[in-house]
Amino acid sequence: MNTQSEQRAPESADAYSTEGSYVHEGEEYTRDTAYIEDRITRDGRDGWPVEAGRYRLVAARACPWANRSIIVRRLLGLEDAISLGLPGPTHDARSWTFDLDPGGKDPVLGIERLQQAFFARFPDYPRGITVPAIVDVPSGGVVTNDFAQITLDFSTEWVDHHRPGAPALYPEDLREEIDTVNRRVYTEVNNGVYRCGFAGSQQAYEAAYDRLFTAVDWLEERLRTQRYFVGDTITEADVRLFTTLVRFDAVYHGHFKCNRSKLSELPVLSAYARDLFQTPGFGDTVDFVQIKRHYYIVHKDLNPTQIVPVGPDTAFWRTEHGRERLGGSPFGAGTAPGPVRPGEEVAPGHGA
Amino acid sequence: MNTQSEQRAPESADAYSTEGSYVHEGEEYTRDTAYIEDRITRDGRDGWPVEAGRYRLVAARACPWANRSIIVRRLLGLEDAISLGLPGPTHDARSWTFDLDPGGKDPVLGIERLQQAFFARFPDYPRGITVPAIVDVPSGGVVTNDFAQITLDFSTEWVDHHRPGAPALYPEDLREEIDTVNRRVYTEVNNGVYRCGFAGSQQAYEAAYDRLFTAVDWLEERLRTQRYFVGDTITEADVRLFTTLVRFDAVYHGHFKCNRSKLSELPVLSAYARDLFQTPGFGDTVDFVQIKRHYYIVHKDLNPTQIVPVGPDTAFWRTEHGRERLGGSPFGAGTAPGPVRPGEEVAPGHGA
Repeated sequence: MNTQSEQRAPESADAYSTEGSYVHEGEEYTRDTAYIEDRITRDGRDGWPVEAGRYRLVAARACPWANRSIIVRRLLGLEDAISLGLPGPTHDARSWTFDLDPGGKDPVLGIERLQQAFFARFPDYPRGITVPAIVDVPSGGVVTNDFAQITLDFSTEWVDHHRPGAPALYPEDLREEIDTVNRRVYTEVNNGVYRCGFAGSQQAYEAAYDRLFTAVDWLEERLRTQRYFVGDTITEADVRLFTTLVRFDAVYHGHFKCNRSKLSELPVLSAYARDLFQTPGFGDTVDFVQIKRHYYIVHKDLNPTQIVPVGPDTAFWRTEHGRERLGGSPFGAGTAPGPVRPGEEVAPGHGA
Repeated sequence: MNTQSEQRAPESADAYSTEGSYVHEGEEYTRDTAYIEDRITRDGRDGWPVEAGRYRLVAARACPWANRSIIVRRLLGLEDAISLGLPGPTHDARSWTFDLDPGGKDPVLGIERLQQAFFARFPDYPRGITVPAIVDVPSGGVVTNDFAQITLDFSTEWVDHHRPGAPALYPEDLREEIDTVNRRVYTEVNNGVYRCGFAGSQQAYEAAYDRLFTAVDWLEERLRTQRYFVGDTITEADVRLFTTLVRFDAVYHGHFKCNRSKLSELPVLSAYARDLFQTPGFGDTVDFVQIKRHYYIVHKDLNPTQIVPVGPDTAFWRTEHGRERLGGSPFGAGTAPGPVRPGEEVAPGHGA
């Protein structure tokens, strides 16, 4: 367990908040980036060998960081190897909970609160109870909640369990470029929207807004002439950008005041996002109802009424994008994943 | 003074709030509609005869109800007859204030708070201190704050002081139709956005949202084939609709959760609104900085951080609208007003 003790208590939108508050007056928002960094690897060097059926991915559909892992698991066909637990969209001051499951308990782990799995690993676990988390089913303890590493390891360590035709989401020859754009997307976009929303002063907010839209302009330009972010097929870089873009108009635009324009008003980026949405493995993991409930209900200090907006109209996501003309193909030499696993479908009326 | 005592204490966005709160848990939003209903007329039957130089219109640029009166005064060329006092965009729990004026005092009335003019008329005035209000300069007391009647009386009672070429905003042959659409626009649109924003429950909000967008769809259809709302020229009906539309993307879309779509995404209504914005007398009265500051700072129970969004990009308002092809002309047989009166210009960088 690697903790960076100089960092403040967790206040990620996706962690519980010790104080129930996400905004700290006068302060810029700083994400706690200390996670349980154990890795599940083929050689089992951290004590966690790759083993089908042993681990459970706990990932709330609402959360963008967790959404990544749901997408990659499905794109690679890891459903039989790694099961999926789905906490509900809202959580209390202590933990994400399995309130959507029968009896309010995860059917495999038998727990009500994700916190229990963190405590099973570290009885005095002091940090944020975050998703995604991978739980060792036999011991009931969390192996890792290091969201950035989880999806990369799905691609590189779980290769023997990929479905036939699984895409190469993190191919060696593109890794350097993927890592480079991922760094910028993480600081400026994925986390950039939170920096706007949780700014503790007008000045911090305005600086965050400028950083975010500077990056948006860069993306709008970069994606004008190429269908995918890096190379000619979908990669990890597309997954990471997508989970923020798909939430943009539903929550970040209004709730986090990222409102220079909606995504839908950006000709290139909105077509790019729709193209991915319509690609099997992306849009079919997205639950707009849970997304909106999460942000608008959990961040009571931003939205004290906890009223959840009805809009925006999600029909937008199914409209034509015209990106095929740019060449490339989503799965390259591979194939699209089949239908969503029964029991893992987004609830009717919650998608687009 | 006509008060409807069965009505609750004022909580209009444009009045002070006795409790500093605009949302009442579990309740639908109900606007206090009791105003001081005296009228200034040619025959002076309420004791307030039309008289150039005697009255002062107090109207905050931020407020949509006050914005109407600023527009109509300018369209009709009443600047010499009725002077204009401009409170700042934010107000405290008691009153709108003249915080933008030198020394924090209205230069003509010599008061710091609009409340003083209400008290000069009724020492125990119990209701909302609202704009627009017309003040009798000699006595310093408010004559009327009945916003709906104020603009109609500018058109019908102040005729002798209209500029040459002033448009007929409330022509007799169209009055019935103007009144009819105005009623629907008032309940469903002008006040409809507040009903969304100040809803005290999810259910009340959702009902308000449906009502609002039902009316938006009606407007989108009605204005598809006609350039103006009623007849072939601008009328009072356009003024009343405009002041809500011009605030839609800046505040109602995000802050009030009126987010099925932005105005800018509605092809007809956004072109209609831009056409009016670009017509002298409309857009040149609009101060987006004050508008955003008003809503986001005053409604602390909706936006506890009081952070004011940077967006949306206002360049939109100057883009081509293409509505000329529908025929009609803004001023009919009349003419456009000249430049904005020196001293009454929207501050540089606050417009579009």
